[in-house]
Amino acid sequence: MSVTIAPEATTPPSATPGGPASTTRSAAAARERTADLEQLIVQNPGAYRVLTGDRPTGALHLGHLLGTVANRVRLQNLGVEMFLIVADYQVITDRDDAGDLPATVREVLLDYLAAGIDPECTTIFTHSAVPALNQLLLPFLSLVTVAELERNPTVKAESEAAAERGGRGTSGLLFTYPVHQAADILFCHGNLVPVGEDQLPHLEATRTVARRFNQRYSAAQPYFPEPDALIAQSPTILGSDGGKMSKSRGNALELRATEDETVAFFRRAKTDADRAITYEPERRPEIANLLQIGAYFTGTSPQALADEVGSAGAGRLKTLVTEAVTEGLRPLRARRRELAATGSRHLAEVLARGNAHANAIADRTLDDVRDLMGMRY
Amino acid sequence: MSVTIAPEATTPPSATPGGPASTTRSAAAARERTADLEQLIVQNPGAYRVLTGDRPTGALHLGHLLGTVANRVRLQNLGVEMFLIVADYQVITDRDDAGDLPATVREVLLDYLAAGIDPECTTIFTHSAVPALNQLLLPFLSLVTVAELERNPTVKAESEAAAERGGRGTSGLLFTYPVHQAADILFCHGNLVPVGEDQLPHLEATRTVARRFNQRYSAAQPYFPEPDALIAQSPTILGSDGGKMSKSRGNALELRATEDETVAFFRRAKTDADRAITYEPERRPEIANLLQIGAYFTGTSPQALADEVGSAGAGRLKTLVTEAVTEGLRPLRARRRELAATGSRHLAEVLARGNAHANAIADRTLDDVRDLMGMRY
Repeated sequence: MSVTIAPEATTPPSATPGGPASTTRSAAAARERTADLEQLIVQNPGAYRVLTGDRPTGALHLGHLLGTVANRVRLQNLGVEMFLIVADYQVITDRDDAGDLPATVREVLLDYLAAGIDPECTTIFTHSAVPALNQLLLPFLSLVTVAELERNPTVKAESEAAAERGGRGTSGLLFTYPVHQAADILFCHGNLVPVGEDQLPHLEATRTVARRFNQRYSAAQPYFPEPDALIAQSPTILGSDGGKMSKSRGNALELRATEDETVAFFRRAKTDADRAITYEPERRPEIANLLQIGAYFTGTSPQALADEVGSAGAGRLKTLVTEAVTEGLRPLRARRRELAATGSRHLAEVLARGNAHANAIADRTLDDVRDLMGMRY
Repeated sequence: MSVTIAPEATTPPSATPGGPASTTRSAAAARERTADLEQLIVQNPGAYRVLTGDRPTGALHLGHLLGTVANRVRLQNLGVEMFLIVADYQVITDRDDAGDLPATVREVLLDYLAAGIDPECTTIFTHSAVPALNQLLLPFLSLVTVAELERNPTVKAESEAAAERGGRGTSGLLFTYPVHQAADILFCHGNLVPVGEDQLPHLEATRTVARRFNQRYSAAQPYFPEPDALIAQSPTILGSDGGKMSKSRGNALELRATEDETVAFFRRAKTDADRAITYEPERRPEIANLLQIGAYFTGTSPQALADEVGSAGAGRLKTLVTEAVTEGLRPLRARRRELAATGSRHLAEVLARGNAHANAIADRTLDDVRDLMGMRY
């Protein structure tokens, strides 16, 4: 089956292990709005422009696919215009060494294309290649205060995480991250941003920047949209050690992994001592995780899969999930090998075309912004 | 006489009313270095590239001419390559309303050209027109910490001043100002920056950014220069009310003023109750200010001018200074009227040419920076 199935097959965030314990009013409102938007998108996909992307820190893994990439492909295939940013500058917000970026960007591109991102419909571009986008940072920085940046919970959390890792102080780039993100989203007049609930404060910063810019420079007719959050209805995928799947934890199943590596990954996946398989995300997160992955790739629900396995136990579940993932990823992996074999020229062309398109749009937006701010001499 | 006389005719900063009360070691070192540099510049002007500029907040006044512009013309005429930035984004670091920027930029350009800035030698450009320069802000922000930005004394002082004026919190643009300045200076590999002593911390930030970039991305051969400060040897010019001359205080004599306005300005200039004219900057700042201005335009020293006027008193001093300024500014004002009469096309062309040159250089620098950072895909 395709890896681009609708997220209905996955669980809602409230059932996600490690999900938010309490629900803020704004998160609840954003979830309600998401439900409305999902209907509106189907009715009129041409009214929406999505900005989304990744930091190129490594090849993508199963957590990326189920968490964000499949949803992007779904939106693209519904006819929504999408800008997919490879956020290379964001790699150095919290580390000194960006690693081998050309190699990493190549892997991410292969993953995107193999997963179904179509560069004929979706603009894939790198942050560092679009100067007019980055220039928007300057006027936008004038619209926020230092106190507001200090209060941003994601900046706070990432600063703390960075301090734990290396003890280095928060960089100016990390501190101003919500404003870069505003530039990333608004340069293309993105009006829809798929986010996890933990990213809502960042999107709120973008909405604030758009609103203040409009009030100050474009009162008669708002120039920038105030983008909507489209809250991802996807589970947090756990790695082989039971922690959140992440490259830096070394617990990830990369999309590019071989079938043998896939078998080995699930063989060492953590389970628990209970014999019978039940779907209880809070009490049995590792089993729930396997059920979610299996359900995703077989187009069923985690509950139904649990009922199917029942007393056959974790061994049987692992066998089923391994088969489902191997089958489900087979077309993606075949396409990925094919793309990798065609050499780097095709990937370079995809990126060059995406960068050219992003630059044309960014140049136009920056021109408009200069006009609106009275900076035309 | 020309307005581009050497600063030797003006007083050293230590004799300036309102100058720094104490001298830090680094300021003393910078002054010593400045003396060396002045000799080196004369010997080999082609080895230096100056970045300097102004926020376009109004037409330039006598304080600008004696404080910075005359020195720039001097450096230009010595054969130093100069980049002169009209820092339009900096206008909104501490205010919401940038005013009529096109009109202000036009006035500033007229002042530059009338004062002797030659666009055939000096690149005049606007901040907002050079995206690749502005993009440098992103990698540079990764090289400084929030704590370092918080400690910057100029950011501190300007934040306090902005808070006094409007109560608005420090903007993100003001907070990151030292890093923009690094981008402004380094995009063209500027290695010489004329500054007042109060701006030394900003230049130190630029030197830090250059050093860290080189260490991290260009260790074998430093890519960016660590620019030197060229401390301006010019007095702080006072306005008609005895405070520092500034457009926002309404106490300024604009370069474009008529002769009648010039007469009126000096007629209402503050003096003191002592009859005899003496040069005592600390005790008699208003009289010293008139002596400094008069000395500048007659090519003598304030002390000599004080001796000349002596017991003839403040009335005689004002007459002498009024005549000297009127005579001294006559060629500048004539050229300015001429330029203004030729219409805006010439000014637009000067700026377009400057912007094109700045963009070509910024694009090349950004390309190098992408290569050095491994962001070439």
